[in-house]
Amino acid sequence: MDRERLRRIAAGMAQGGFSQMLVTATPAVYYLTGLWVEPHERFLGLYLTSGGEAVLFANEIFGLSPTAELPVVVHKDGEDPVRDLAARVRPGALGVDKFCYSKFLIPLLEARPDVRPALGSGPVDLARQCKDPAEREAMRRASRANDAVMAAVLRELRPGVTEAELAARVNALYRAHGADGEGQQLVCFGPNGADPHHAPDGTALRPGDSVIFDIFTPIGRYWCDMTRTVFFREVSEKQREVYALVLEANQAAEAMAGPGVPLRELDRAARAVIARGGYGACFTHRLGHGCGLECHEPPDVSGSSPAVAEPGMVFSIEPGIYLPGEFGVRIEDLVLITENGCEILNHHPKELTVI
Amino acid sequence: MDRERLRRIAAGMAQGGFSQMLVTATPAVYYLTGLWVEPHERFLGLYLTSGGEAVLFANEIFGLSPTAELPVVVHKDGEDPVRDLAARVRPGALGVDKFCYSKFLIPLLEARPDVRPALGSGPVDLARQCKDPAEREAMRRASRANDAVMAAVLRELRPGVTEAELAARVNALYRAHGADGEGQQLVCFGPNGADPHHAPDGTALRPGDSVIFDIFTPIGRYWCDMTRTVFFREVSEKQREVYALVLEANQAAEAMAGPGVPLRELDRAARAVIARGGYGACFTHRLGHGCGLECHEPPDVSGSSPAVAEPGMVFSIEPGIYLPGEFGVRIEDLVLITENGCEILNHHPKELTVI
Repeated sequence: MDRERLRRIAAGMAQGGFSQMLVTATPAVYYLTGLWVEPHERFLGLYLTSGGEAVLFANEIFGLSPTAELPVVVHKDGEDPVRDLAARVRPGALGVDKFCYSKFLIPLLEARPDVRPALGSGPVDLARQCKDPAEREAMRRASRANDAVMAAVLRELRPGVTEAELAARVNALYRAHGADGEGQQLVCFGPNGADPHHAPDGTALRPGDSVIFDIFTPIGRYWCDMTRTVFFREVSEKQREVYALVLEANQAAEAMAGPGVPLRELDRAARAVIARGGYGACFTHRLGHGCGLECHEPPDVSGSSPAVAEPGMVFSIEPGIYLPGEFGVRIEDLVLITENGCEILNHHPKELTVI
Repeated sequence: MDRERLRRIAAGMAQGGFSQMLVTATPAVYYLTGLWVEPHERFLGLYLTSGGEAVLFANEIFGLSPTAELPVVVHKDGEDPVRDLAARVRPGALGVDKFCYSKFLIPLLEARPDVRPALGSGPVDLARQCKDPAEREAMRRASRANDAVMAAVLRELRPGVTEAELAARVNALYRAHGADGEGQQLVCFGPNGADPHHAPDGTALRPGDSVIFDIFTPIGRYWCDMTRTVFFREVSEKQREVYALVLEANQAAEAMAGPGVPLRELDRAARAVIARGGYGACFTHRLGHGCGLECHEPPDVSGSSPAVAEPGMVFSIEPGIYLPGEFGVRIEDLVLITENGCEILNHHPKELTVI
């Protein structure tokens, strides 16, 4: 148990109007206990009170052992997974993890009609937004590996190579860097790049294609996430113009990022650059997202985000322009808010590159 | 909308004691609408009534279009995702998808205190358990591809190859067979095989190792899932003995599988074989699980399963013996219950194999 993190959570519980809460999401449980458990359809719940109680309710199949700091109450497959939890919670408000499945919440409420559920992820989300020193170093390490993987995979561009082949290559490179797992890397050639979520397929690389690599994976539990767009063999005037705008938008937002800056202002600054260039309607997603134990986590970096940058926050800045039937460009870095400004965690060059 | 499937759901709703329900899980929504949407942190909800109403509530980012059969009510990022749903539901019991996140259920209940949530996945789960003819054919196709992938990857065993390399190779082979995505394949050498959930790592293959391939992926939306255990270069007497027991357990359960047979009896039959051989304590998991649009779905095939085999059910039969510090053996097929017995969907040989 990380007692400092628990103390921050307890303060958040008071603000949320509850004095007990149930944490179920894998990264949230890991953040507080150091235990990484993927329960899939089974139940894992960390029960916390603002007084400092902490009890883990877990299926025995997870093989967790109690410690002096953290009692573990186990249940077996076939038993009611929330029976012991229902006996433990107090009447009144219970903060509940936003990702708790109804299959656990509904029986808990049926067993304990005196308990009133409230959305209870806020305290952990808020604490997780601001990375502590060990987490900052973990994120730097992951992004340094990402720089190396990006450089390596760009050397593998050749006529006819497919998106799927390069995506698999990215995963192989990640493994060599000690990644925790594999992901669905985004590799998009030419017109495929106009869909921000195009999944890599058998499309073969051709001269004149824009090539988007949006690559991300957890390494040491913390995610890296970077996007670069390059051009294969040749680049048109329109591609140059669009690339320059996206780069300017990326740099404008990064130049502004620092403590006290509302994140919506970063989104607006990047969007204003692209709009001035005449492509405002083609930047179809938010500027970025928080990143840490999850690839996408709070804070939101959009025009409607209520969040204000604080030291320790890590989020992406990833403007893009998408031209259906033609091509797309996106440039993404992770940035870490520091006491004075921000540290850009990615170092792969961003100048227009023709390979 | 699949009207026949909807009719089966409506019958299940009556049994569940509710006349309205909310379906949120991706495969469940797909089963009823033919729309495959992965909403991640956003809201997707299919509202159904026993009278045949069906309305889809969806974030506009999913790009879904209403049809004559299925109205779509969209919300945007930043708006309350359950606002329109809260206005639509009727007072009283509401069946709720077991995988609905609390982040949607709790605000819905706060907006509508006159609604009482009930676990509501039963009707869709029960319908999905019994595959219709098109689904049966999809599962046969996926398992045929799995047979081919298993045969191909077994040709790649050589001294020093790592578990992670072979797992990546399995995913590459799946891609070549048109898989929908990649997964965390289980490849376990020697002592690693004693952990049924060991994730592939840099362990290198050595003579005398048992080699477990538990490989699975969705192809055309339906999952295949098969396990074979082979031995590299040599096999000890103990490995032979354990392998023979696991194979006998697998075959005993498959021989019994047919309509009307309680699934717990299959588990017991396989477990009895292994117990008679003296390894009862080393078969540490249930015999199997339903498989279809999800790799793990109902019915449960364990000693406490209430399910009885019906034509159209597809589930795994996968006994195993795990000897910590030594090795593991698991043999798994998917079986399809037919009118007279069962069809074994995997055809890769199961005789003891030394490669």
